[in-house]
Amino acid sequence: MSFIEKWLRADIQAINAYHVPSADKMIKLDAMESPFALPDELIGQYLAYLADAQLNRYPNPSADELNQTLRELMDIPDDFGVLLGNGSDELIQLLALACETNDTILSVEPSFVMYDMIAKFTRLNYHGVALTKDYQLDLTSMLEAIDTHQPKLIFIAYPNNPTGNTFDRKSIETIIRSTDAMVILDEAYYAYAGDSFVMDIGKYPNLVVLRTVSKIGFAGLRLGLLIGAQATVAELDKLRLPYNINTLTQVSANFLLKEKAEIDQNAAIIIEQRQQLLSDLNAIVDLTVYPSQANFILFKASRAQALFDFLKENGILIKNLSSAPNLADCLRVTVGDYEQNQLFLHAVKKFYG
Amino acid sequence: MSFIEKWLRADIQAINAYHVPSADKMIKLDAMESPFALPDELIGQYLAYLADAQLNRYPNPSADELNQTLRELMDIPDDFGVLLGNGSDELIQLLALACETNDTILSVEPSFVMYDMIAKFTRLNYHGVALTKDYQLDLTSMLEAIDTHQPKLIFIAYPNNPTGNTFDRKSIETIIRSTDAMVILDEAYYAYAGDSFVMDIGKYPNLVVLRTVSKIGFAGLRLGLLIGAQATVAELDKLRLPYNINTLTQVSANFLLKEKAEIDQNAAIIIEQRQQLLSDLNAIVDLTVYPSQANFILFKASRAQALFDFLKENGILIKNLSSAPNLADCLRVTVGDYEQNQLFLHAVKKFYG
Repeated sequence: MSFIEKWLRADIQAINAYHVPSADKMIKLDAMESPFALPDELIGQYLAYLADAQLNRYPNPSADELNQTLRELMDIPDDFGVLLGNGSDELIQLLALACETNDTILSVEPSFVMYDMIAKFTRLNYHGVALTKDYQLDLTSMLEAIDTHQPKLIFIAYPNNPTGNTFDRKSIETIIRSTDAMVILDEAYYAYAGDSFVMDIGKYPNLVVLRTVSKIGFAGLRLGLLIGAQATVAELDKLRLPYNINTLTQVSANFLLKEKAEIDQNAAIIIEQRQQLLSDLNAIVDLTVYPSQANFILFKASRAQALFDFLKENGILIKNLSSAPNLADCLRVTVGDYEQNQLFLHAVKKFYG
Repeated sequence: MSFIEKWLRADIQAINAYHVPSADKMIKLDAMESPFALPDELIGQYLAYLADAQLNRYPNPSADELNQTLRELMDIPDDFGVLLGNGSDELIQLLALACETNDTILSVEPSFVMYDMIAKFTRLNYHGVALTKDYQLDLTSMLEAIDTHQPKLIFIAYPNNPTGNTFDRKSIETIIRSTDAMVILDEAYYAYAGDSFVMDIGKYPNLVVLRTVSKIGFAGLRLGLLIGAQATVAELDKLRLPYNINTLTQVSANFLLKEKAEIDQNAAIIIEQRQQLLSDLNAIVDLTVYPSQANFILFKASRAQALFDFLKENGILIKNLSSAPNLADCLRVTVGDYEQNQLFLHAVKKFYG
């Protein structure tokens, strides 16, 4: 028995290392990335801006300018606090660390897998409440589970990943009002949704909102943010590791995220493409397509695994969710640009012949 | 009582938010940064290299090329594993998360404050064993404390921060052999030290080594690494948050850290400057100067607070440690370039008249 087998707790040893499939030279529609690269005319200015970064010095510890840039990009009121992380993942972990031993994280299933994973990493309990058959919130089950498990954190992805829909707003408000837990609305896909809970932060002291720039063109930056009451953010900030946002990220995001018009325009294109793709997929009888407020679409497919494999052989990578609970025969495709979506559609139609 | 006051555990609420003093236009000798900026002739090539980064895509999840770049820069054998973090801080936290509830982290005092802080963040116990009066390891006390507290992790900074010295190698080896704990040699200052434990990893299965590029010219990258047996790294990797090292860091470090000759030469200059500064400070009767194997020097000063204030008024920022336990009247100065060190020395001499 090796040292690490004796030393490490069994629940971590039991995890299978997460495998990211190689997407070399594939049309990548698996990870909810934006298809739009930086415009050429912006790259030169960006690099000139970056030339002044002092890499031998530690970053600005509070990333003040970036904080302001994000407020302007996302219309966040000055009287809310903003906390930055290396992706939302770091902020989910920070929230979990704010809990006490034996506390419980509650979320819905299926949803973003990191809520459960990070509960495990941080030695907390996790309880997942099943969504209804058509992936809606089951309010009665939620309220019962909250009463039984007395969670410290409740994560609700809005829109939800991997289902793509937003849940009923009134049900979410009932949950927020019914609990002493901190309720985290994870709005990773906010740019593609018609609704947001950011402005509700003033109304509900136990509500915070997570966002990220990963789905709006900047997955490579790994920059997430938590928006909440100023007092809440000030306390949570004590758990942030010093200098967590590096200089490259701060300087790059300060330049790139000021291009609000470009970012908004790209989101509008994706929304338009999503509506077209929803309609085109709906016309294929072998598929059951779910509504989407995000930059991806979930659909149930006959012979899902074979379709997934066929797409892959044709150079198109999407996500196969069919082995997950409550997602039998389900695949998820990221909305790409027009050409990518057409190639994807063409291949799906070809498969079903 | 606000929501967050009711919700957050008391030990985190009791933390005073860490305040980083403003160093605007000051000679910054407080944070162990390298004084050397990127050479002008390198910046153009670097930015051209960065122009190809695909920021709309997620980073390489395993940062394979960067892993190799760091192996070459630091002469890490192929049969050891390497795990990357956003600064060593993220790796210290990952090690703490690998522990079980009620486990204990042990270190020496004074040492790097994050061992204690991160133990608190991750809800573990912390026990600090006092160094001797001249900041050496007290082997007897260490072995007793290990026996009493049965730690899961033992952190030893080598060289130690804030004292600057390396501890007795034989004592460290005795500690490693005497315990079932994972022993972490934190070699943040490896570039300025005459010894390292990296090659001992093959000998001791419970030994891992932490390093960082922060002290060798790249504090702005926030890039740390853990070196250990391959099986150990493979298991710890399960606790790493996906895509933790962003694209900017991966691409930048791949270019910048290939300049091994430049990095080594800068370290040699700092070592030479350190020896000169040690000798010059030793000549000042009001100071007691401690030996250093790092890029900073600890010294005890008469009227320490007044000297610190005087330097600050003269535009020189160093670190005042005098309120910390076992560090009464102690100040710490980072070794800068020739001009910075001369200005610092001149001001110290002026203060003591």
